[in-house]
This record gives sequence, structure tokens and C-alpha cells, in this order.
Amino acid sequence: MGNKAITERDKDFAQWYTDIVRAAKLADYTSVKGCIAIEPNGYAIWEKIQEIMDKKFKELGHVNVQMPLLIPENLFNQEKELIKGFAPELVWVTEVGNEKLEERFAIRSTSETVFCDYYKKHINSYKDLPKLYNQWCNVFRYEKETRPFLRSREFLWQEGHTVHATAEEAEAEAKRMMDVYLWFNREILAIPSISGKKTEKEKFAGAEYTITCEDLMYNGVCLQDGTSHYFGQKFCKAYDVKFTNRDNKEEYAYYTTWGKTTRMIAAIIMVHADDYGLVLPPRIAPKQVVIIPIGKDNEEVDSLVKEFNTKLNENNITSYIDDSEKSPGFKFAEAEVNGIPVRIEIGARDLANGTVTVARRDTREKIVIKKEELTVQYISDLLEIIQKDMYQKALERQNKLTFEAHTYEEMKEIIDKQPGFIHGDWCGNEECENKIKELKGCKSRCILDEKLLTGKCVCCGKEAKHHVVWGIQY
Amino acid sequence: MGNKAITERDKDFAQWYTDIVRAAKLADYTSVKGCIAIEPNGYAIWEKIQEIMDKKFKELGHVNVQMPLLIPENLFNQEKELIKGFAPELVWVTEVGNEKLEERFAIRSTSETVFCDYYKKHINSYKDLPKLYNQWCNVFRYEKETRPFLRSREFLWQEGHTVHATAEEAEAEAKRMMDVYLWFNREILAIPSISGKKTEKEKFAGAEYTITCEDLMYNGVCLQDGTSHYFGQKFCKAYDVKFTNRDNKEEYAYYTTWGKTTRMIAAIIMVHADDYGLVLPPRIAPKQVVIIPIGKDNEEVDSLVKEFNTKLNENNITSYIDDSEKSPGFKFAEAEVNGIPVRIEIGARDLANGTVTVARRDTREKIVIKKEELTVQYISDLLEIIQKDMYQKALERQNKLTFEAHTYEEMKEIIDKQPGFIHGDWCGNEECENKIKELKGCKSRCILDEKLLTGKCVCCGKEAKHHVVWGIQY
Repeated sequence: MGNKAITERDKDFAQWYTDIVRAAKLADYTSVKGCIAIEPNGYAIWEKIQEIMDKKFKELGHVNVQMPLLIPENLFNQEKELIKGFAPELVWVTEVGNEKLEERFAIRSTSETVFCDYYKKHINSYKDLPKLYNQWCNVFRYEKETRPFLRSREFLWQEGHTVHATAEEAEAEAKRMMDVYLWFNREILAIPSISGKKTEKEKFAGAEYTITCEDLMYNGVCLQDGTSHYFGQKFCKAYDVKFTNRDNKEEYAYYTTWGKTTRMIAAIIMVHADDYGLVLPPRIAPKQVVIIPIGKDNEEVDSLVKEFNTKLNENNITSYIDDSEKSPGFKFAEAEVNGIPVRIEIGARDLANGTVTVARRDTREKIVIKKEELTVQYISDLLEIIQKDMYQKALERQNKLTFEAHTYEEMKEIIDKQPGFIHGDWCGNEECENKIKELKGCKSRCILDEKLLTGKCVCCGKEAKHHVVWGIQY
Repeated sequence: MGNKAITERDKDFAQWYTDIVRAAKLADYTSVKGCIAIEPNGYAIWEKIQEIMDKKFKELGHVNVQMPLLIPENLFNQEKELIKGFAPELVWVTEVGNEKLEERFAIRSTSETVFCDYYKKHINSYKDLPKLYNQWCNVFRYEKETRPFLRSREFLWQEGHTVHATAEEAEAEAKRMMDVYLWFNREILAIPSISGKKTEKEKFAGAEYTITCEDLMYNGVCLQDGTSHYFGQKFCKAYDVKFTNRDNKEEYAYYTTWGKTTRMIAAIIMVHADDYGLVLPPRIAPKQVVIIPIGKDNEEVDSLVKEFNTKLNENNITSYIDDSEKSPGFKFAEAEVNGIPVRIEIGARDLANGTVTVARRDTREKIVIKKEELTVQYISDLLEIIQKDMYQKALERQNKLTFEAHTYEEMKEIIDKQPGFIHGDWCGNEECENKIKELKGCKSRCILDEKLLTGKCVCCGKEAKHHVVWGIQY
């Protein structure tokens, strides 16, 4: 029996997801279809994501910039594959006041065009390279079906755009940043991900190749949760980004871009939340601990609550006191819905017995400890245990939902029964990808650098070239 | 003799401004007219502004959210004065892919409509109040004439939107946030500002009143640098934001909004920069200290440079070493153009004499000190002295450029000779405002709570109601 405002996860996963978003006050719908209002609880998670990722980017030498939101149609058209890939989802500005513009502007759906246009002016010599720029901003893609955080017409992201003097350096950068994403998912979001190159069909429009980071949700559906693209010299040719190399020859530059979005909040929900609400990994939780005094006007209770709350905050554990008028039961439920990792209950009767209660959000376990045991170190250790346990739980589920298919029939059987990460060899032919897609929209997630399973394509039975992970996606 | 890339400030102020923006690599023009690319040096200042302001907002109980970029035309139209005020500058989205939309969307030029639409759904009782929301985002106003940071078609800002149960509380909030802005200008940006209500003609479209923060630039031109609006119940009536008050009666809520923008970077330039480049107040400088080793491969020099740089950074002074291939002279000029508050020069010959050189960016003074005197405390004190001296210098200039006018002729004379903050009484009649505007576009900046000068309107000579500061504006 979970929270009344939340549909059971095993009964109706889609409704459960929407209920969590609303019950935990993460976001709400607005008068603009497909665009959400990110509410304080949701935005605080995004701020925490930004803080940790941005620090890491800067440690690696990246700097932030801000490029224009609007892109002249003519500029977008310079790279044919990109415009083809994004055209149906582009939103166009055509009027100012009541006058028609001579040229349409697209609202950015991604900023490769804008960055290359900038770099063209600012890169002359190999001495100007590398350029390691990133921006945090909003982007717009007019999706048909939308769901909060998962697929919004407007969303927030960071987009890294780097330019290099050699192919090797650029490829190393694309890989390095994917490694940062995988580190972030694993260590901060407690989400195990798999990673590899996308197939030609699934790669970013205009890239040489795309490396992806794929998560598995509770229901076995896959989520693309960050990509890193290597463009070779392709984009720089289209946008005329040249430099004089060490041999004093003019050459086109090598380009990478990489992005991760507010979709991460959807991943946190669909990997960790339960029937009682959100469950936040301690390292990403804007508030890690709530202290709830039980009963009123007890001096010993009130002073311990205040004192311990101050101690936690002084030691970089974000803690707050809920001393509102609501009943303890209501406060417990609210802290649960909001996913606060640790709840401390301090009451007069327990104190008389020399105890306090500590509750873990992830397991919902209540631990009665001696008053003296309640130390900063105890809570700090518990938060680390929760972080690790949450990752372990997600990893075990992912392992349980990882399958092998040797034939098309086996693949169909798996997908009909319980989708997940499905390993299966592939001949490299797009026709086979299309045929597999007929199985409830199952697509190649990524190519893994592992041995082939059988050496035969899971679809056509011909000789396989790649070991691929397949799955149904959001 | 300043930097060759920079026009003399006293010769051509407008060109000097543009030269500073480019020479200090703060921003550049793009393929979208009126929209700039904020480059790493410029964006780092904005990040520092955000960090300090956001911390203060949160201390005062505000939380951040993110509302949609697009506003349906129909929603915008609900408040007649607002749409009238912003209509000519609104940018409209009318197409998706190649299809025409049924209803146009405006790109936000300000988000009162969107926030009220949200609050309408989420406020029911006085228990839900106050709501203290803020967002950091981009906005779009299609200005005819644009200049980097000063007036861009797209700019970055924060917009606070708060809702309250009483008029008193809302008015106190509008005032409190203006006080925060004045604190920020004075203590962080080292800019003295004046503040008061705008006249009816100059207030924000749809507000009951607007409080403004006005800075004076080096050339005597005024800059509006932050506003706080009190709306009474006006907007909440137009957007149906109601709540049940303590007497169990339904009532419209009381609303305030307040914003400060990337224009602050223009103010920093036009108040503090000189013919050698940018001059950053230490508290807003992303990099406060540069250490330049003179000569090569001297172990004593290199170890002192590294050691002291580490010490500074460990003590929260942001410092970096410039050990690039360039000549010392080139490095000095570059640090000057970029406005780094303190430069430390460490060379073998000086060390042999037991000395090092410390240069202040604000005064360009070179101070030779004993090696032992170079401590973290010394630099920390010097940064504080620079911060205070820069404020004092700006204040003295502002005082020198503050005038009193008793008649229209006096006002004309002042403006023709040297514009500035011009104090003059006013009858409260818009016709007089319009007539004063004929003097090179001179406008009322704000109404000050001071005694009247003569009791007679500076324009028509009739009985005065207000003591007003007038000036030419950007």
C-alpha cells in the first residue's frame, strides 16, 4: 500500500510516472502544450546536477559561453544532414511586432551551426586550439508526444562544443566526455548505464559517429541519457572552420559535441522511485536529511533537533527541520513523496528511553538507535550506504533484465514477455534493424566492444559484424 | 597612451566601449543581428554575478523555477497594458517544420503572464502564500538599436515573481529586493546607484509602481540597472489569481516582480574601465590575481610562483600563473586588458635584491615590496583596498556629475555642457516630462524622497509635487 496520490508502479507504469512528477511537485503542465513548468523541487535537482557536472567540466579545462537562441534559416541550411534530421521539429520565428521578417529564424534545437559560425571567425592557427566551450541553456524540439522531463518540447541541457587540431585529440575528447557522463550516472545518480557507438541509422544527423549512454528503466524500457558526437572535419568543412597547422598548411578543424539534459530527472524517477514517491540518491538530493520533532513544546526534543540540524549543515550535509503544524504521519509521508534520503524522528517518549529513530527512504527501514549513536558520522556513513545500495539495486535489476537473443524468434519472445537490454549479433544491414523495429519498436541501443554471441545476425542469420544491445526505448 | 586596440575614452566613448568589449574578449557579434555571443571572459563575470545574487536570494527564502520560453498570444493579451507596452518588440513563432500554427507564440520578453497562469492553478489559501519564485533565463526584445550587453535583442537575466496575501507584505518585498540590488551594486560591483520610484510615464507597463536602480556612467549618461515592480492586485485580477484569506473570504493576491540583467556587465565597463582595458572590482573578478614569472628556468622564481599561487587559491583568492611563451610586456598588457585586479611580477634579479613587484589594475601603480611581505594577507588586504577605492572613485565622479537645475534654461545649459544626474522639482505633469525630453532625450530617472529644491517645477514653474532626478539615458 503506497501513497494514495500515486498509482501502483506495477499496475500502470505510465500513470505512476506522471503521479510521481506531480506528487513530488517536480513539474506541472502549462498553457503551452508539451512545455512544462519546472517547479522548485524539480529545479533544485537540476541545480545540483549543474553544480556537480559544471565543476567536473571546469576541472577538465572547459569554459562556459552563451550563444544566441535564434538561428537564421540560411545558416541552418549549410549542413544538409543536420537540417534533414531536425527539420520536422524546428520551430520558426517569422514575425516581429506585426511585421514579417525577411528571413526565418529557427529556435535552437541544437547549436552546432551557431558554434561553428562563431569558431569560423575565431580560429586561425593551431595555437588557438583546442577550444573547449560549453553552454547551459534551453532548446526546443517540437515533439508530437510529450511527457514531463522525458520528452518536452522545451528542455534544459548542457551542450559541449570542442574544436581540435587533430582527429586523435578530438576522438579522445568525445570519449573522455562520455566517460564523464558514465561517471556522473554511476557515482552521482546511482544509475548503471551501458555505452557504445550508435549504428549509422541511429547516430546524430551529420556526425561521423555517436557514442551513447543508455539506462534501463524499472519496466525494462531503455532511455538514451547523454550522447557524445565525433564529427571529424565534416561540420568544419560545411561551416568553413579552418586553421593553419604546425606545418603551416591550412586544414579543416576536428569537432566534437556532447550533451546531457533534464531527461536525467526522468531517469532518476524511473530507476529509483517507488509506490511511496520519489527516492533520491543522497549525492544528488538537494535536501539529504529531514528532522521531525514528535510532540510539542518539549525542551529536550526541541534543543536536540535544532542542535543536530545545525551540526549536520555545518558538516555539509543538507538538513532541515519540519516543525510545521501537520501531524507526524503527514510529515513522514511528505518526506517520503519528496524522496528525502534520511528521516530522523525525535520524540519525548523515545528520548526518555534514550533512543531516536532513523528511517531510510530507499528501503523504508526504521532503525532505532541510542541517542548517543546519533552523530554526524553516523548519518554521513548512512548516506553513503544508501548511495551504494541504490546503485547496487539498480545494477541487479539491470542484470536481471539483460537477455541474450540468438534468433528473431527468441528476440520476439523476450520482448513479448519482458523487455530489457537484449544482446544480439547483427550483420550491419539496416534492413535487419528495420525488421527488428517491427517488434514493438525495438531498436539498436548501442554497439558493444564484446565478442560476438553466435556470429550470426539475430535477424537474418547471415554472418554478423557487430555485437549489439537492442531494446524498446522512450 | 593606452592599449592600441582601444580608442581613447575621452575621444570617442561609444567606440571605446565597443573596443573594450572586443579587446577583453567579453562578447562578439553573431550572424543574428542584435544578438551577441557571450564569450568565456564575459560569461565568467555573469557566472560570478549569478553565484552571489542567487546565494542572497536563497538566504531570503526564494526558490528557483523554470517556466516556458513561449507564451500563447491569447495569454499575453489578457493584460492590456502589458501587451501594449511590449507589442512592438515581441518576436513571434508562427510555424513548426513547414506547418503554420493555429495560434502564435511570443518568445518571452518578460514572464508575468506565464507566472500568473501558473500561480492561478497553485494558489488556493493564504496558507499557500507567500510564493517567492525566481528564474534565471534568456529573454527576447526586438530592439531597433543594439549594443553588446547594453541593449541586446536577447539577454540573460533573473526575474523574481512573488505573490503575497497582503498589500503591505508585497510592497515590503518590492522594496526589500530593490535594497538587495543596491547592496549588490555598492558592495560587489563597486557602483554607487540612486534609487526611487519611476514616474507614471516611465513605470513598467501594468504595474502600480516601479522602483528603479540608476547608475551614472563615466560620460554622465544614466543607466537603468534593475527594477522592482509592485502590481497591487492588478495582474492577479487579469489572470484570476485568487486565494481564501484568513477571514475565509476570496481575494485577489498581491504581486511583485523584479529583475536585473547582463546589462550589469555594461555598467561595470562604463563605470570602471579605462584606456588600458577592463577594470574589474575584486569581488566580481572571476580571476583576481595573475602571477607572472620574469625570465626562464630560474628554480627560485618558479618555485616561489607556484607556491604562492597555490597558497592564494587555498585561501579563496582566485589566482593563476601566466607562464606562456609570450613576452612579459605582452602578458602585462593582456592582464590589464582583461581587468585582473592584481598582478604579481616575480623575477630573478628582483629576488636577488629580496623584492617582488605588485601592480594594481585600478590605479596602475607598481609597488615594490620585500619578498617576505608577499603574503596571502597582504594580497587579501590589497584586494579589499582596491574594491573600496574603486567604489570611492566612482562615487566621487557621480557626485561631481550631480547637478541642480531650478529652471528649464539651467537644465538645458547643464545638458549641453556635461550631462549627469540633474536634480529638479516637477509638477507631476506629463507635458513637462515631454518638454524636458526635447533636451537631447533627457528623462526622469526617479523620484527621490527628499525635500523640494525650490518648490517650483523646473519646466513650467508651477507648484512642484516631486523632487526628481533627470538625465540622458542609455
